[in-house]
Amino acid sequence: MKLKEFQDILKKRKIDFALFFNLNPIEADHNLFYFSGYSGIGVLVIGQKKAFLLVPKMEYEKARKSRIRKVYALDKKKLFDSVLEKIKKNKIKRKKIGIDKSVVTLTEYSAFKKSFKKCKIANVSRICYELRETKTKEEIRIIKKACQITDKILTKCFKNFRRFKYETDVVVFLEQETRRSGCSFSFPPIVASGVSSSQPHYEPKPVRLKKGFCVIDFGIRYNGYCSDMTRTIYLGKPSRKEKEFYYLLLNVQTATIKKIEEERKTSKVVQFVKNNLGRYDKNFIHGLGHGIGVELHELPNLKETDKSRLKENNIFTIEPGIYFPGKFGIRIEDDVLLGKNVEVLTKVTKDLLVVN
Amino acid sequence: MKLKEFQDILKKRKIDFALFFNLNPIEADHNLFYFSGYSGIGVLVIGQKKAFLLVPKMEYEKARKSRIRKVYALDKKKLFDSVLEKIKKNKIKRKKIGIDKSVVTLTEYSAFKKSFKKCKIANVSRICYELRETKTKEEIRIIKKACQITDKILTKCFKNFRRFKYETDVVVFLEQETRRSGCSFSFPPIVASGVSSSQPHYEPKPVRLKKGFCVIDFGIRYNGYCSDMTRTIYLGKPSRKEKEFYYLLLNVQTATIKKIEEERKTSKVVQFVKNNLGRYDKNFIHGLGHGIGVELHELPNLKETDKSRLKENNIFTIEPGIYFPGKFGIRIEDDVLLGKNVEVLTKVTKDLLVVN
Repeated sequence: MKLKEFQDILKKRKIDFALFFNLNPIEADHNLFYFSGYSGIGVLVIGQKKAFLLVPKMEYEKARKSRIRKVYALDKKKLFDSVLEKIKKNKIKRKKIGIDKSVVTLTEYSAFKKSFKKCKIANVSRICYELRETKTKEEIRIIKKACQITDKILTKCFKNFRRFKYETDVVVFLEQETRRSGCSFSFPPIVASGVSSSQPHYEPKPVRLKKGFCVIDFGIRYNGYCSDMTRTIYLGKPSRKEKEFYYLLLNVQTATIKKIEEERKTSKVVQFVKNNLGRYDKNFIHGLGHGIGVELHELPNLKETDKSRLKENNIFTIEPGIYFPGKFGIRIEDDVLLGKNVEVLTKVTKDLLVVN
Repeated sequence: MKLKEFQDILKKRKIDFALFFNLNPIEADHNLFYFSGYSGIGVLVIGQKKAFLLVPKMEYEKARKSRIRKVYALDKKKLFDSVLEKIKKNKIKRKKIGIDKSVVTLTEYSAFKKSFKKCKIANVSRICYELRETKTKEEIRIIKKACQITDKILTKCFKNFRRFKYETDVVVFLEQETRRSGCSFSFPPIVASGVSSSQPHYEPKPVRLKKGFCVIDFGIRYNGYCSDMTRTIYLGKPSRKEKEFYYLLLNVQTATIKKIEEERKTSKVVQFVKNNLGRYDKNFIHGLGHGIGVELHELPNLKETDKSRLKENNIFTIEPGIYFPGKFGIRIEDDVLLGKNVEVLTKVTKDLLVVN
């Protein structure tokens, strides 16, 4: 996406080309995928006019199906020597080179500098994150679809909930439905029942589902784009007090989504949540939300200390939670599109679901 | 593991402490987990005598269950300012600090240097990789168990193969059996049928299983440690020529495992494979194998250009493959322990399984 916009920025900043690379077969460089549509081991070179990919022989077939027309198979030279050779071949200058310093490791940087000795370096991290923050029409379409699929799977999961005995039964169900939809995962599902619900990043285990609140945090990856959604349900019979906690949080969550229509300063939105949680603001121990896109966590970053504003065509989560260590936790999370209006993309009901 | 050994090395190299950190909720710093048993957001400080963890409030409960006794909850200061404060509090010097340059990004390094201005930096990447390369008894026990579970799941998968229609049916089966075993994944399973088998890193899709070779590359993560195994089966009726290709590769794979008993130079082991593949050596387009441990790919690195030797208590994959683009591919992969003798840890039969 936005390859042309990025090339215009390179031109304006007098950056001759930008370099994105991924050397690990099971990881992804998000910018590389974002600009090219290719994920896998490889190097993406984006000049002010030209762009090309270099990939290992074994990835050549796959890379040819990406949005980048020019693809080279890597030979046995050192990686950055091969890159340098193709840069020369394509007559691209190399006075000033853009890299994303937030993903390049010190070791990779040393290797790179051996081949590109005298070049100036520009950090294009901020540029990339900001381009990615504001979604294109096509991205909005894809993420909406990702959210629809997530809705469908989670609804089906809740319908079947009575037959699950173990936390991992729920995980298995979510994962198999994801695969059957032709999607992959944006992160491993969290299913945290009973006292485990008080740990926001709990890892589900093959243990019996415990009575009490059960936090289910689930997202998929569709066409490379993430969804991310949380519902908290109740197993057994909730007490009046427990229901009060749930609806306190739910009211805060929905009021926050409404608040965004008028308030675009992220810090103020977070402050609004804290104020509305009253004495339980200290039980809200993580960020309010984050942008979603090719990466699960991207801009905007909804936290108290953030100084930026929410912008049109941002898609982000709103996920307040309250946690009582050793007792229970509740979190409710939606994906929200800030268009002309605020649109909630994840539509699974938020009324407290009680499974007896 | 090997915390004490690492501390001895720090002392010998006059490194006051080493710093490992993970700032991403869905990634892991392998050294941090290796030395502490804790995975999640946090910072691990290993001094010559003391070691402690700093984690976000919400991870405190989890971190308290790790092997590191001293755990601090992070406050709202800048991350590395908090680290500095605890370093001072624990009376640890800070003349020379060890970091793993192969995982620290340029951005992280800048942030770190703001709090640790005048300190010398030592790259402990090699030290960590080499410590991790040679497995302890406990690690061997864990990885053997991981391989046993992998065997069990794959055997069950093959028994049920007739009822799978789509590539993703196989993936779903492997993933759900993994979850039910209380394990997680070391990488997303590869199920590549028909012409797709010619792509070593193919991503399975919800498409009908195609006739011909079907490569299944599958591994799990048990107690934080990876297994990694590949079998190629045949859907339909293989031709004589296809059987010949399969048994050529299988003979090379088993001969290679035998070869290791006497030949410890990795480059020579790879050369042995190439020689034995004869005219098909050019169809072998990836590395011969890699160490497995807390990370899926670690030392030793079995490739032609590698200059090191295999050592006792290394555990690594032996995974030759031959690929004919647009036609088919075959890969056979075992996990091998180099003990007093060579022990194959993955025991699923390698006779060509034909599913009609």
